[in-house]
Amino acid sequence: MPRPREFEPDAVLDQAMLRFWLQGYRATSIEDLVRATGVKPGSLYSVFPGGKRTLFLRSLERYSKLVVPRKLGDLAAPGASLAALRGYFDGLVSDLLSPEGRQGCLLVNTAIEDAAEDDEAAAVVRGHLARLEQCMTTALRNARATGEVRDSVDPGGSAKLLVATCQGLMVVGKANPDEAVLRAIVDNAFAVLA
Amino acid sequence: MPRPREFEPDAVLDQAMLRFWLQGYRATSIEDLVRATGVKPGSLYSVFPGGKRTLFLRSLERYSKLVVPRKLGDLAAPGASLAALRGYFDGLVSDLLSPEGRQGCLLVNTAIEDAAEDDEAAAVVRGHLARLEQCMTTALRNARATGEVRDSVDPGGSAKLLVATCQGLMVVGKANPDEAVLRAIVDNAFAVLA
Repeated sequence: MPRPREFEPDAVLDQAMLRFWLQGYRATSIEDLVRATGVKPGSLYSVFPGGKRTLFLRSLERYSKLVVPRKLGDLAAPGASLAALRGYFDGLVSDLLSPEGRQGCLLVNTAIEDAAEDDEAAAVVRGHLARLEQCMTTALRNARATGEVRDSVDPGGSAKLLVATCQGLMVVGKANPDEAVLRAIVDNAFAVLA
Repeated sequence: MPRPREFEPDAVLDQAMLRFWLQGYRATSIEDLVRATGVKPGSLYSVFPGGKRTLFLRSLERYSKLVVPRKLGDLAAPGASLAALRGYFDGLVSDLLSPEGRQGCLLVNTAIEDAAEDDEAAAVVRGHLARLEQCMTTALRNARATGEVRDSVDPGGSAKLLVATCQGLMVVGKANPDEAVLRAIVDNAFAVLA
């Protein structure tokens, strides 16, 4: 009979995800992960062969599956329209202005820190950006059909720009969490659509 | 007579700046800096009291003074117009597509990694963003005066949005250095101005 596992892999991943989110990949040591998860190194390596990097890639997947849908909210619905798109940006601004939201987005942090050097991590980030672009394209297409958005707006091109805008909003908001500046960015991004 | 200094502080700062640029603040150890600069820890601390953090803050200042003006190019001129603004974005795209440019911008990396926790570093990043916004506002104002940009464009508001757009361009470009995507972002950002 195999020995019962002494820990729950998903609970361990949640702890690891939080460390990577707060500290970044490079600055998180296997010792930090052992301390944060309370699991001995031998057990950690037996369930996550490859150790730190495996825990990181699995953390990124878990973040995409659990945290991203919560952030996307109504924007992920097939019927999403301009209000859902605006709601997504307003949610980002609220997050950036709240103490708990200041760690930003694990995937943006990963893009900046590591994507250029780790193909698998970059692929997860690219998948997230593609999904975001798809949701935004759908919302813009729906909004154009109802006349909320001008006919001259190209949903695909505008969605690419809005993806970059929300990533940039997070960079600006981390250094300068000034509500007036963040709202001005969002207002100006939406002014050209209506 | 004081003992002659055995190293040139600016040359040491250049090496330190490069380490922080490539690895980030948290993942760079004082041992990395000793190795990269070739200066003994005692001498390093005597010229840069505070060690790693002082070297980091001085590196950010040096980057702002030496690297940023080169990236800004014509956009920093008082007579900058739409072509200079566009040239700045096109330069960012070229950098993101070149192997040497992939480390991105030290100030963006700092915003993402550290700004929320280090007020002095955040202040340097905020200073950079404010300068960028000022240059972009001037260029848009000049371009509106010559009719290159629509009268309905608010230079201040559009500049805030363009600052966020170029930061986001760097996030997207790091994860997905796809020329078509990066050019579409820039094209769409400029399409609404003319």
